[in-house]
Amino acid sequence: MPEINLEKLFAGDTRTVARAITKVENGTAGAAELMRAVFPQTGKATVIGITGSPGAGKSSLVDKLALHYKEKGERIGIVCIDPSSPFSGGAILGDRIRMATLGLDKNVFIRSMATRGNLGGLSRATVDAVAVLDAAGFDKVIVETVGVGQDEVEIVKAADVSVVVLVPGMGDDIQAIKAGIMEIGDVFVINKADREGVLRIQKELEALLSLAHRPDMWNPPIVRTIATENKGIEDLATAIESYSDYDSEAADASRERKIAIARWRLTELLREALLERLLAKNGSEGNLDRLARQIADKQTDPYSAVDELLNAG
Amino acid sequence: MPEINLEKLFAGDTRTVARAITKVENGTAGAAELMRAVFPQTGKATVIGITGSPGAGKSSLVDKLALHYKEKGERIGIVCIDPSSPFSGGAILGDRIRMATLGLDKNVFIRSMATRGNLGGLSRATVDAVAVLDAAGFDKVIVETVGVGQDEVEIVKAADVSVVVLVPGMGDDIQAIKAGIMEIGDVFVINKADREGVLRIQKELEALLSLAHRPDMWNPPIVRTIATENKGIEDLATAIESYSDYDSEAADASRERKIAIARWRLTELLREALLERLLAKNGSEGNLDRLARQIADKQTDPYSAVDELLNAG
Repeated sequence: MPEINLEKLFAGDTRTVARAITKVENGTAGAAELMRAVFPQTGKATVIGITGSPGAGKSSLVDKLALHYKEKGERIGIVCIDPSSPFSGGAILGDRIRMATLGLDKNVFIRSMATRGNLGGLSRATVDAVAVLDAAGFDKVIVETVGVGQDEVEIVKAADVSVVVLVPGMGDDIQAIKAGIMEIGDVFVINKADREGVLRIQKELEALLSLAHRPDMWNPPIVRTIATENKGIEDLATAIESYSDYDSEAADASRERKIAIARWRLTELLREALLERLLAKNGSEGNLDRLARQIADKQTDPYSAVDELLNAG
Repeated sequence: MPEINLEKLFAGDTRTVARAITKVENGTAGAAELMRAVFPQTGKATVIGITGSPGAGKSSLVDKLALHYKEKGERIGIVCIDPSSPFSGGAILGDRIRMATLGLDKNVFIRSMATRGNLGGLSRATVDAVAVLDAAGFDKVIVETVGVGQDEVEIVKAADVSVVVLVPGMGDDIQAIKAGIMEIGDVFVINKADREGVLRIQKELEALLSLAHRPDMWNPPIVRTIATENKGIEDLATAIESYSDYDSEAADASRERKIAIARWRLTELLREALLERLLAKNGSEGNLDRLARQIADKQTDPYSAVDELLNAG
């Protein structure tokens, strides 16, 4: 893979940005070096994390929000986290459809990140991709996740503003409360707000939020949208901006949060680096295969196998 | 924490099972030793993984399925994966409500597993909890996940039978295709099948499944249920059983899958053990804190920080 031209990257050249993200996604040699150069250039973009369950209409909402920013003359980067398997062509197809909607030009960049199998690294790659877009001069970077899994929650928490998207009709389900997304939302959206049950979900959400304890005393606003009809998008943009302003004034809480994010990110990187270092050793991959077979055949148990690998490593 | 009485555990004593799961969840000293004793006793239960988005009615479905098995005289263990933060009391409250529904006796055991913060380990703890229930003689172990995140997909893939729950009205959203859950489902459920849009989601699902390539040639059945009215539960149980039978006959594919699961599990354990070993070293936690502060203040970048920690370790 050719070297990334840093000058072009920081100037926001689309092809260079795409190549840089591929580099961090693959974790190829030079990715760490690239990120060392990128890191000092970050911190200018507003990073907006958007999460919610499939079917909540997040893609439409993100697209409309991106168009809103674009019309105001801003540059927008979108990173979609896609828990689909590497076999699926869904991500690429989806990107193409969305690029057509958003109008493919140098002011809007969209990229799906798929999981990378057993070695993990989705969180690391996503956070790095966001940093690349930030350094490339995008004003807003939107991170959109499909899932509400552990990794996805962490990634959205790492954004400057976290938006949680709900839809009417979820309310029957105690799952909605258990999903643990209540505590990460700086802004809540009730999308598809023309559907039956809007009042009910609004009331439930208000009740849950009144029980939540935020260290920073912020009272998360609830915005109603109908993304497909472009309704409520400006309200959403205003809510995002108001939290962003609040957060930058609450300097102490903000710094503590930044440290917590840095600590999480460092731990993720460390975990990945430690495993890679072990597996890079001669024979480790072979040992892993052999032990996996022995576990499947119940000749050994996973804990004894780990001990063996640690002692060999 | 007192030692786990293995005799009582293997006899299925509820309190001992609960204590054993707490031990593996906390990853306390003795957890690895416990799992070494548990592992040879596993492999008898049918492990059923159930996933789908929040609002799909998974909890009701799982409860009704558990009651169905209970009426047939079987013992059922339920493990719920809950991506909520440790601050949330939602999980415990939810368990209590569900225990009341299911009838709390020694034949039904339910337990929510929450994420454990930065050190991760949810996947490891969940797989261990399933093994504990298996060894304790539960006939069916149901693993229910709220999310469709990376960890959750891996956990459900590790089950003997994976069930994906959908609801009518998701179809507008390209997300449903991208969610990557299509490829992990051995059985699909359309819950809330009295709602508008059942035919549409059935057609879409059939179309997507016809595109999917399964190495084992299994054709995943689609079952319609209305869990709240106890409709379709027997059909679901039959579909689960038919895949379970198919899979145990397809011995080669089944063994390859078992090896792949063992390899994933081993990698997870290894990743966790490597990080724990590094952080257990004198001064490592302090270094991590110091470096996190330096990253937040942009005095260093995460990649250089990892190098420092690796070289110190």
